[in-house]
Amino acid sequence: MSKKLTKRSEDYSKWYNELVVKADLAENSGVRGCMVIKPYGYAIWEKMQAELDRMFKETGHQNAYFPLFIPKSYFSKEASHVDGFAKECAVVTHYRLKNDENGKVVVDETAKLEEELIVRPTSETIIWDTYRKWVQSYRDLPLLINQWANVVRWEMRTRLFLRTTEFLWQEGHTAHATKQEALEEAERMQGIYADFAENFMAIPVIKGTKTEGERFAGALETYCIEALMQDGKALQAGTSHFLGQNFAKAFDVKFATKEGKQEYVWATSWGVSTRLMGALVMTHSDDNGLVLPPNLAPIQVVMVPIYKSEEQLEAISEKADEITKELRDLGISVKYDNRTTHKPGWKFAEYELKGVPLRIAIGPRDLENNVVELARRDNLTKQVINQEGLAVVIKKMLTQIQIDLYQKALNFRDSHITKVDTFAEFEEVLETKGGFVLAHWDGTSETEEQIKNKTKATIRCIPNSPIFEEGKCVFSGKVSTKRVLFAKAY
Amino acid sequence: MSKKLTKRSEDYSKWYNELVVKADLAENSGVRGCMVIKPYGYAIWEKMQAELDRMFKETGHQNAYFPLFIPKSYFSKEASHVDGFAKECAVVTHYRLKNDENGKVVVDETAKLEEELIVRPTSETIIWDTYRKWVQSYRDLPLLINQWANVVRWEMRTRLFLRTTEFLWQEGHTAHATKQEALEEAERMQGIYADFAENFMAIPVIKGTKTEGERFAGALETYCIEALMQDGKALQAGTSHFLGQNFAKAFDVKFATKEGKQEYVWATSWGVSTRLMGALVMTHSDDNGLVLPPNLAPIQVVMVPIYKSEEQLEAISEKADEITKELRDLGISVKYDNRTTHKPGWKFAEYELKGVPLRIAIGPRDLENNVVELARRDNLTKQVINQEGLAVVIKKMLTQIQIDLYQKALNFRDSHITKVDTFAEFEEVLETKGGFVLAHWDGTSETEEQIKNKTKATIRCIPNSPIFEEGKCVFSGKVSTKRVLFAKAY
Repeated sequence: MSKKLTKRSEDYSKWYNELVVKADLAENSGVRGCMVIKPYGYAIWEKMQAELDRMFKETGHQNAYFPLFIPKSYFSKEASHVDGFAKECAVVTHYRLKNDENGKVVVDETAKLEEELIVRPTSETIIWDTYRKWVQSYRDLPLLINQWANVVRWEMRTRLFLRTTEFLWQEGHTAHATKQEALEEAERMQGIYADFAENFMAIPVIKGTKTEGERFAGALETYCIEALMQDGKALQAGTSHFLGQNFAKAFDVKFATKEGKQEYVWATSWGVSTRLMGALVMTHSDDNGLVLPPNLAPIQVVMVPIYKSEEQLEAISEKADEITKELRDLGISVKYDNRTTHKPGWKFAEYELKGVPLRIAIGPRDLENNVVELARRDNLTKQVINQEGLAVVIKKMLTQIQIDLYQKALNFRDSHITKVDTFAEFEEVLETKGGFVLAHWDGTSETEEQIKNKTKATIRCIPNSPIFEEGKCVFSGKVSTKRVLFAKAY
Repeated sequence: MSKKLTKRSEDYSKWYNELVVKADLAENSGVRGCMVIKPYGYAIWEKMQAELDRMFKETGHQNAYFPLFIPKSYFSKEASHVDGFAKECAVVTHYRLKNDENGKVVVDETAKLEEELIVRPTSETIIWDTYRKWVQSYRDLPLLINQWANVVRWEMRTRLFLRTTEFLWQEGHTAHATKQEALEEAERMQGIYADFAENFMAIPVIKGTKTEGERFAGALETYCIEALMQDGKALQAGTSHFLGQNFAKAFDVKFATKEGKQEYVWATSWGVSTRLMGALVMTHSDDNGLVLPPNLAPIQVVMVPIYKSEEQLEAISEKADEITKELRDLGISVKYDNRTTHKPGWKFAEYELKGVPLRIAIGPRDLENNVVELARRDNLTKQVINQEGLAVVIKKMLTQIQIDLYQKALNFRDSHITKVDTFAEFEEVLETKGGFVLAHWDGTSETEEQIKNKTKATIRCIPNSPIFEEGKCVFSGKVSTKRVLFAKAY
């Protein structure tokens, strides 16, 4: 398989699909819409998981596990929730196969479930059915619980990581005694997601809330973080929902207050998914392949020997082992690729494609001069560096790469937020420059819907810190007090 | 809810069920046969996962993720495999719900799948369908891959952790160029499981192979580790399968050898599951509740203040904070329970029930005397210990508890392996003493089956290091060269 990718400028979508497969992140499986996450891609996901899990636990959350299946009747209890998910559900109807008279394996019609089971698209219903048993008094609150799980939403048009029928995620589900506490939790988790995206993944995000039309099915408020991809399309990178008492009412979860009154419990839920892998790829990568922030790179430094003779390889390997040890002592993950089956040029291209942040090349002349060649993946620069003190230089450089990637993405994002005041401008910006469009909106679902139908742009969020100003809706001309963020989105 | 448990001697099965629920490990959900793993139980499972994951990676394995769903046709490709799993499959037949004329949520019959999807009971078929794309040449081998996942086997009679419709596990799936290498891998993983069970979970196990009748559906050889529970029943704690070329042939996975010949790939698969949680409970726990080996305890040390006045509590808390810091510096997890809502006696019972290995109690007199009372959960002994050097004493004691628990379980296990030479003895041992029965067997499935029908005992394994000796089958009287291990089992 050629390592060469389609250029982003030629066909961004094709570039993405090729990159995900060629960099060994994921591939399509034989099951419609379901992906195989390959070891290299999964190693990146594991790094995300570990960091998020640490952040959740640090803020008092515990992990648990709830069933994959949800009885149809549970699912139907919260009206807007079932409306939101009914059209994309995998339904289990039978529990046995058998051989038919011709020896063919068929579904055993005698093993039909009395009540169908839904493969969870999200777990609010099964979890709130459980919380009813866990919550009696204010002393049992808050419940701060998270689960790492697979979920299924039957998607008609799928793309690796961005939209798949099955995906991996975490879903937090918390229960609180007061509205205020639940609101604070929902906002806290939005903050944690933003912190994670920016400081760990080097992806700048805008924090805001969703409009009614874009809210989670069953939520009173959806807090989100929105990122901008290199093609000027937005990507929702995480959401945190204030669910009010909707699920507590649907599942009859009440608690005795300190004063002995019975009240419904307040809820939040929040999640991020393997979709973040897509955001990662589309924020930092280039025409040569993946670009990984050092925090997320399974291999942070790769070392490639340049040699002609066996003797040269041996001498280089000895030095490489020394350097490896020094790097590992500083907590840096390093791979020395001394395979004799592949040429240095092939290896360079391979690790470029896979986004390894730093590459060290050592040849016989470098050995003589006590130097190495150090190449940065992000900006493709090379320099010759002394072997002495190399590990410390690399440690600093990894930190710098992490910062530079964030800054580059931030510059791109900030230069792609355009204020517009007319609908003509609005349409033109979307068609030419792309990115976020900051425009006045009259606050109605009708206008939101009409803009979407005309331009495919949706309101990504009402930013958390809006600039309040008098204005007129870019579409209807009606009065507006603040601008919201529109974009075409993944 | 009372903390009091049914005694093991009264009703072992009831004791187990109560303990799992009351110690907050897991509970039944509203979905038939599916459990909710509660935060405390899940924290123990996370410790198992972390250690196993470390061991897998240290031996060169990588994690990946494959789809939850398996097309029925894949599932049918390996004949003995489908026979083994067809009767316990959850089958997805539809992908949409809708509202009927009465507004009721029903399955949308127009959204019927062309081919039914099976919720994975194990992933050999979907993985080998993928490996076909990954393996072309000997250079692509071995593939050493593991996945952490949920699986579903439709069980009619379920018990928390031991037998549930959905359970969590890891499944390793490896591909090799030679039979020898695959055999070595299967044995290596059996060794890793045994090491993990004994040194991390403090559960002694016997390594062996399964008889043909007890093998995994599709395997040529199944390596297992067998543990003995306190009621004298055996529990299979992990299996590792040599699959030969069965799945490679079913999914047409060939590779080009160094010599350029096309050959089928050799396979193994291996797994352990949340069933280990059941083994953990039933190996170490007692009538007061859970007993946890320190390696697996989410809280290793709990500190409880004994006080009458506010002032006393403050003085104790100050000392407790010091001790906490010292313990944490040694990597010991500690909880100081200074809740004023519960009395010390209630707390003692609570942490006993939850199996916290060590409990520190501090009262005003202890403060004066610079001592604490230290209580071991495993043997229920108490002693008064100097505050000075306490952390080091505790660190050593935790190590000792881990060793003692293993030794205790080993003594129990070894005293429950009984050699018998007649079928009368065989039946008597099973009915009275229980445990493993070491007996001669003629090697036929017929005899195995008849013994099972008569006594409910199965051949747990043919031990890895059998004592070869002339003998006669305990049932048929035919010639036998070695003894095998029988037991009633979970």
